[in-house]
Formats: sequence, C-alpha cells, structure tokens
Amino acid sequence: MSTSENISGVRALTFDVFGTVVDWRASIIRECSLLGRSKGIDRDWERFADSWRGGYAPAMNMVRTGELPWTSIDSLHRMGLERLLIEHGIEGLSESEKDHLNRAWHRLEPWPDSIEGIERIRKRFIAATLSNGNISLLVDMAKHAGITWDCVLSSELSGHYKPDREVYLTAAGLLGLEPGSIMMVAAHTDDLLAAQALGFKTAFVSRPLEFGPSGRAEEAEGTPFDISARDFLDLAVKLGV
Amino acid sequence: MSTSENISGVRALTFDVFGTVVDWRASIIRECSLLGRSKGIDRDWERFADSWRGGYAPAMNMVRTGELPWTSIDSLHRMGLERLLIEHGIEGLSESEKDHLNRAWHRLEPWPDSIEGIERIRKRFIAATLSNGNISLLVDMAKHAGITWDCVLSSELSGHYKPDREVYLTAAGLLGLEPGSIMMVAAHTDDLLAAQALGFKTAFVSRPLEFGPSGRAEEAEGTPFDISARDFLDLAVKLGV
Repeated sequence: MSTSENISGVRALTFDVFGTVVDWRASIIRECSLLGRSKGIDRDWERFADSWRGGYAPAMNMVRTGELPWTSIDSLHRMGLERLLIEHGIEGLSESEKDHLNRAWHRLEPWPDSIEGIERIRKRFIAATLSNGNISLLVDMAKHAGITWDCVLSSELSGHYKPDREVYLTAAGLLGLEPGSIMMVAAHTDDLLAAQALGFKTAFVSRPLEFGPSGRAEEAEGTPFDISARDFLDLAVKLGV
Repeated sequence: MSTSENISGVRALTFDVFGTVVDWRASIIRECSLLGRSKGIDRDWERFADSWRGGYAPAMNMVRTGELPWTSIDSLHRMGLERLLIEHGIEGLSESEKDHLNRAWHRLEPWPDSIEGIERIRKRFIAATLSNGNISLLVDMAKHAGITWDCVLSSELSGHYKPDREVYLTAAGLLGLEPGSIMMVAAHTDDLLAAQALGFKTAFVSRPLEFGPSGRAEEAEGTPFDISARDFLDLAVKLGV
C-alpha cells in the first residue's frame, strides 16, 4: 500500500462521489423499503438496489460507445428503474412516486467521515466533485447531506463519462490547473488509473462496505497511488491538514 | 420600485458576481496601489481600475459577435492589462507580477452584506453564481472571500457571455430547473432583462458604490423586476428567510 506523501504542488482535490463520498447502497435500500412499506409492497430491496446500481456501468457504456446519445445519470437511473419495476413485478406506482424514487439518488447519505474530512481538506485545498452524477443531482445531494463543495464538477460538463479522458481534462481546464496540481480521490481503481494516466495525483480511499457487508469492495493493496487512506479523516491527515 | 413577493416556485437563485456580490472597483484600486507602492510606480489607480473594467464589455462583445473565438475573462483581463500598461507608461513588471495583478480579479472583496445574505438565502434555496467570470476565477474568489456557493456556474459553460440567452438556458439545464424556478440576482438591468425574457424570476439589488462615490450605478426605480432590494440582507428578508 502506497503511503507516499508526494503531494507537493497539489492545489485541488476532485472527488468521486457514488461510493466514495456517499453510501449509495444503504441509502437506496432504505428509500426503497420506505416506499415499499407505504405501498404495501414487499421485495428483496437489497437485491433491487444492487441490480439498480448494477445497471449503471452498462448504461454508461452505451453512452461511451455512442449507442446512446448523451444521457444524464438521472435518465439512465430512470431507464433502469422502469426495467427493474417490471422484473420485480412492481405495479401501481404513480409517475410522482417513480420520480421520487428515482431521485433517491439525489438524497444519498454520506459515509460518517465524509463531511468532517471534506471540511478539513477545504481549509487548505479546493475540494470539488468529479462525478458521473449530473450537476443537479450533486447539488441536491450536497444540500441534503450538508456537504460543502468549492465547486461541483461533473462528467456532464464534458459530455463524456468517466473513465473517458475528456472528463478529467475538462475538469482541469475549468479549475485552471495542470493535471499534476489536482489529486483525484476515489474508492475505485479504474477512476484513479484513468486520472493518473493524464498526470493527476491520486488518492485511494477504502470503502469496504460500498457493496454491503458481504459485497466485494476494492482494496488498496498493491495499487500505485500517491496516497492510500482508510477514510477521509485519514486522507486529511495524509494531506497534512 | 417593485416589491412584488411573486417568488412562489423559486428553488434556486443565480447571482451575478462582479459588482453584485463583490466590490471590484475598490478591490482593484487597492491591488494596483499595493503593487505600485512596492514598485515605486505612482499613477491614478482609480482611473486605471475604471479603464480596466471599461474594457470588459467591448472585449466580451468581440467574443459575442464572433470577432474573437471563445476567450476566458482571465484572458480578456490580461489583454486589457497589457494595453493599459502601455497607455499608462508602466514598464518593468515581470511576467509573474503581471500575472499576480491580473489575478487580482480572483481576489475581489465582497460587499459587507454579501456573505451573511448568501448564507441566509442558502438555508432555503440553492445559491449559485452565474457570472461571466470563468470557473477558476469564481472558485478562487469564493475561497479568498469566504463565500460559500452551492454551485459555481459561469458563462464559460455555455461558450457565450451574458446577456446571451445560452448562458441562462445552460444554467437552468444544469440545475435541472425550469427558468421560472430560478431567480436571477443582479445590480444590472441588462442581465436581469435577458433572464426575465427567458422566464427567470428577477431580483434587482442596488449597489450604489459599484462605480465609486461619484460613479453612476444603476437604480431600481421603474424597473419591472419581481424583487428590488437594498442589499443581500434586504433580499433575504424579501425572500422570507
């Protein structure tokens, strides 16, 4: 595990959000359960949440390969939801109930260390999102969760999804910084490797519960990142703040 | 003066920044004076600041008409600075000194009510910039001044400058809101009229000192806006927060 302190020249940190800042799984399970209880619908909401998230990468890849034109995560989530409702035999939801459920992704809860960690990091660095979530989703989530960002950046601004290089280069351009002055923070190796290939500094943060107690979250062992941190408080310490 | 409370349905406020949130004139005069003192250069810095700002609209219009390709405010400021240094016979500044001076626009100071007003407004609404300043300028300024935004939006994201309609429509799209759910806030009638024509709600905020004690700031008398406020605290009151 790298614990390199090679952070000289870093001015900004860009954060992956789903899984890295917020616990999408527990949040989605809770929202589904709440709606199910109010509607008298009983299903395996853990499986439902995992399937919903599981449809995310294939849907984004359809955009990345051009099979779909640019489509926001909100719309991709909604497409996935419509399919899942059929697969799970869930009927009788109104348009407004479906919309509310789809917007559960705007109301994801942060990991316990996220808010304090970001606050500490913001004292010395620019802290921005760099998420595949659309801007409005990220803004709503930050308001809901009480997270403060210096800047909300999204794949949406480049018309590409991570790990396409355009996402990272657009973010660097908007921040007015060279890639080497930016550290990408994520719990996902593919995101960090893509950023690293463009010259970004990188920080891996472990989120062992991202896919639930029996899920297989990524581990930092043997990965070539500038920082490897247990959580955002550990990241702050390793950044010297 | 309109004091209409027609704010139902407003979810977000988008703020013009130069002149509306920050006192560009006093800030630029101070930065020029500081550099001048350290370099032993004595000039009429009030006139220098007014000329620098005065070159802003013509330069943006060159972009708006296509005479220049998309050019950031940072670059437009720098073009203006180079011209002004010649006109004022100022020589001997290093590249790093010129860059520091140009970045004075990243360090503009807020009006005394701006920070508290935005904080109050953020308790109930999304508060975003919608400025012709580039994203990095706005992020640096917010860090410097201690302003917290929910989202930093800029003309840069549409490749057009205000009052081009693309700026407002891009912002609405990114916020995921209909224009009627957004209130544009500015001390400038042209900005508000352009937003209003697209369906935005509008709030005029008086900044009588924007152009200095003897300058001619815009007045709200007779203007057709949903709110007219003396400052951001008055705006907060009129928004019911």
